[in-house]
Amino acid sequence: MSDCVFCKIRDGQIPSAKVYEDAKTLAFMDINPLTRGHCLVVTKAHAATLYDVEVEDLKAAMATVKKVAGALRKALNPDGLNVLQANGAAAFQSVPHFHLHLIPRWSGDGKGFDWKLVPGSREEIMSVADRIRAIFG
Amino acid sequence: MSDCVFCKIRDGQIPSAKVYEDAKTLAFMDINPLTRGHCLVVTKAHAATLYDVEVEDLKAAMATVKKVAGALRKALNPDGLNVLQANGAAAFQSVPHFHLHLIPRWSGDGKGFDWKLVPGSREEIMSVADRIRAIFG
Repeated sequence: MSDCVFCKIRDGQIPSAKVYEDAKTLAFMDINPLTRGHCLVVTKAHAATLYDVEVEDLKAAMATVKKVAGALRKALNPDGLNVLQANGAAAFQSVPHFHLHLIPRWSGDGKGFDWKLVPGSREEIMSVADRIRAIFG
Repeated sequence: MSDCVFCKIRDGQIPSAKVYEDAKTLAFMDINPLTRGHCLVVTKAHAATLYDVEVEDLKAAMATVKKVAGALRKALNPDGLNVLQANGAAAFQSVPHFHLHLIPRWSGDGKGFDWKLVPGSREEIMSVADRIRAIFG
């Protein structure tokens, strides 16, 4: 898409620090890094979200995520790694072109998510599960 | 692995609210839901992390993530969706069996991540990119 930042990066119209590229995917550094080494994997084909991306492009993107994760581990030796993908403004998606964040983590880096494990209501969970299963029919 | 919670769920030794299953993957509700509809996609084959999972299992898991995301959207109509995957305790991985979280989001749900966009140092980013590229050779 002509006004898409990641399409422009793919096409070299906007500069980026690319770290990996293959036929279907591209990986480059996030310019707003949450941690040192934070990079993005994008599909070359434009698709706004997980809902829209072609399955073959999605599979290629994840294979690239695994490759770049391995390279990040060798290069930076983080204590952990989060992969995060966002769909929609309510999920903090800022660029509407399918992408996955690779976020190296270090113990005590203070970049934690709001991630408290609180048991849910069994009835509520079962009710939602029923609704999801009904979609699969 | 005999002491792995997700292997036991796969084998039916621990009950779960399954929502989807195929040859290589399984999806079920998270018992500690961050939001309504929070579910997990796991590979049936045991692998601790993204580094260890077989690429074909990883691709299958992402195809399942896309299917379950579509079902979640139809069932619950959330405003957004986050997909999150953790490797290592420093990244808040609590079960050492490869899994992806699907977290439906609603505007103003207050379940945001600590996700402030702060531009990084260009020199630092370029230096890290060089180190990652060097791994690919």
